[in-house]
Amino acid sequence: MGGLCTIRLFLVTYAYERGCLYHESKKTVNESKDCWWRIDLPKEGVVIKMSSLANGLLGVALALAMPAAAQEASKVSPLSIEKQGSFFVGGRGVHSDTLSTLPNFAPSGTVTVDQMYVRYQIPVNSARRPLTLIHGCCLTGKTWETTPDGRMGWDEYFLRKGYPTYVIDQAARGRSAGNVSAINSVRTGKAAPDQLPVVFEASHEAAWAIFRFGPEYPKVFPGMQFPLEAQEEFWKQMVPDWSNSLPTPNPTVQALSELAQRLDGTVLISHSQSGIYPFQTAAISTKGIAGIVSIEPGGCPAANGDLQPYTKMPILVLFGDYVDQSTRWAPRLKSCREFVAAATKSGGKVELVVLPDVGIHGSSHMLMQDRNSLEVADWLLNWLDRHVARK
Amino acid sequence: MGGLCTIRLFLVTYAYERGCLYHESKKTVNESKDCWWRIDLPKEGVVIKMSSLANGLLGVALALAMPAAAQEASKVSPLSIEKQGSFFVGGRGVHSDTLSTLPNFAPSGTVTVDQMYVRYQIPVNSARRPLTLIHGCCLTGKTWETTPDGRMGWDEYFLRKGYPTYVIDQAARGRSAGNVSAINSVRTGKAAPDQLPVVFEASHEAAWAIFRFGPEYPKVFPGMQFPLEAQEEFWKQMVPDWSNSLPTPNPTVQALSELAQRLDGTVLISHSQSGIYPFQTAAISTKGIAGIVSIEPGGCPAANGDLQPYTKMPILVLFGDYVDQSTRWAPRLKSCREFVAAATKSGGKVELVVLPDVGIHGSSHMLMQDRNSLEVADWLLNWLDRHVARK
Repeated sequence: MGGLCTIRLFLVTYAYERGCLYHESKKTVNESKDCWWRIDLPKEGVVIKMSSLANGLLGVALALAMPAAAQEASKVSPLSIEKQGSFFVGGRGVHSDTLSTLPNFAPSGTVTVDQMYVRYQIPVNSARRPLTLIHGCCLTGKTWETTPDGRMGWDEYFLRKGYPTYVIDQAARGRSAGNVSAINSVRTGKAAPDQLPVVFEASHEAAWAIFRFGPEYPKVFPGMQFPLEAQEEFWKQMVPDWSNSLPTPNPTVQALSELAQRLDGTVLISHSQSGIYPFQTAAISTKGIAGIVSIEPGGCPAANGDLQPYTKMPILVLFGDYVDQSTRWAPRLKSCREFVAAATKSGGKVELVVLPDVGIHGSSHMLMQDRNSLEVADWLLNWLDRHVARK
Repeated sequence: MGGLCTIRLFLVTYAYERGCLYHESKKTVNESKDCWWRIDLPKEGVVIKMSSLANGLLGVALALAMPAAAQEASKVSPLSIEKQGSFFVGGRGVHSDTLSTLPNFAPSGTVTVDQMYVRYQIPVNSARRPLTLIHGCCLTGKTWETTPDGRMGWDEYFLRKGYPTYVIDQAARGRSAGNVSAINSVRTGKAAPDQLPVVFEASHEAAWAIFRFGPEYPKVFPGMQFPLEAQEEFWKQMVPDWSNSLPTPNPTVQALSELAQRLDGTVLISHSQSGIYPFQTAAISTKGIAGIVSIEPGGCPAANGDLQPYTKMPILVLFGDYVDQSTRWAPRLKSCREFVAAATKSGGKVELVVLPDVGIHGSSHMLMQDRNSLEVADWLLNWLDRHVARK
């Protein structure tokens, strides 16, 4: 037998209610890999697959002990969608004379830039406020979809809980066009190389610490819940980031304001780089913003700034685990605490939660993809239920 | 009264069967804009909105004359989805020393490139082969989603007809990462400007003729079906195209082969720039390819090349209207005809169809977004039904 796992039974039962099963190892003697196991629920019946299961007998016993009704419920039921689709918000036409260096495409003309791609799904009989899911640095809306190890993403999970979900690609990222005119200007000698856009990619090695899989590549924080066995799939999610070549604030912010007003009451859920966007959106106008959930924000508003916009809606700032062990994230948590204290003093309903403080452990920076992502989602749904009015 | 429209009644009835209504103007006296009208079908009942309706009384009379049952059927029913999600295919890790010029992100490390993003939806009780939808130049998977004027895209329409749909973003496009190392190499003086990647954007003005909205910007072919009133939304779909900086064949081709084999029998439906990809995929291996539908391909395989791969599956090459009036497209249609003749002679079941020849008129190059997009879809579904075996 490999490592010794203490299975937290309540989690197992709990997870079955959602039609999917996972565990959280409370304590491992050997490396945590020995405690990973998963149960796949195919269409016909329940089949248990175990990978390096520390205590196989316990796992089997648990599954067999489940009442038939619970096993039935454990099948993921079909999704019933009232409406789905995609559209763009924002965008402006600009003229360029360096669109192309190819004979088949003219160099001069108009292109549209700064628009924001939005894909949405609305469940049948929804009485909930729509959730707008905003990805972070070096990523796209894929962040919220199927996890790297193939589990249900938050986009679908929230939908199944009755929330319309709107997943965006930030301006100049994913399906939202960038502008490459400056590249062709330099290529054709019309501009100097220092006029090239500022664009960067986060390497696997750099992302490792930024996303707090561990203190540095390839070390792992004990008990950390990101599914590292599927890291190759995760690296494929990463894309070049052009945000430093865009105007400030990022055009995504204006587009989010337009989207919020169109939806007439949405909760803006941002992550990391985009953590500040909902606050910047509220500073433009609080119209249409039913709430703000800022997950592991790269920054919070200044504690000594104008805090009035942040007294108009419920706000949650959410951090995962190991923050104090990260030189990148610890100062951000500290400054967010200062913002929350100041906004509360100004009359805002602003809350900051660090997940281990509410009994959820092991969350990486990519907590929406962690093995316990749906546990975090449930906690968040509970918060939304208590703070955001239904439609 | 504005223009005079002859409403083609069979189309109106026909469209109601699908829960959405449009018309095709047979002849307009004034500019076609005067004849545009649409009917929105909200949740409760049927409401008719008319915009610049040439013959308002006729429109209303038609709607009122519909039997109650037809009006009931005209509501779009909820979508029932067995499973949905997203993943990547392909991709490889590469080392770079010019990933970043920013202090917060290290310049050296590994990034993953050449992967292909795939988003899929599987309808309940599907007995059909999955369809893989592959977009063209300067576009992303958005091509197949909601049309610029807000109607249902082919992705959902095929799903509603029982087909699992897999929508991809080509390598280095949309949610499939590119590699910007060369830009930073030039920016930091490590490489000369001529080492910059070849990247282009199609301007609105250039795209106009390429997509055959008319012979040249802003002229419109008579009866052309693209919803030009929503052109601003369409321009937002366009993104820079990095394909000329990628290896040949495009890494998308290898990824399509991997996807086809994983799906164990999919119809590859390509468009324009990607028109050739399914053929190139079949040349790698015919495994997993249940059929090829190449819509308005930028090119067909050479008629004097190895045609054996194209004798292994049903193949359709599909063109829209006004091809003979386009110096860009007429030669491509001609060379595709030569390919089809040669492949047929070699024993292939290869068909080339120009839509006006089967009674569908007005199709632009973006025929999956035209006002009569679902009429084309129905024709295609009929073709699939006759040529591609069920699962």
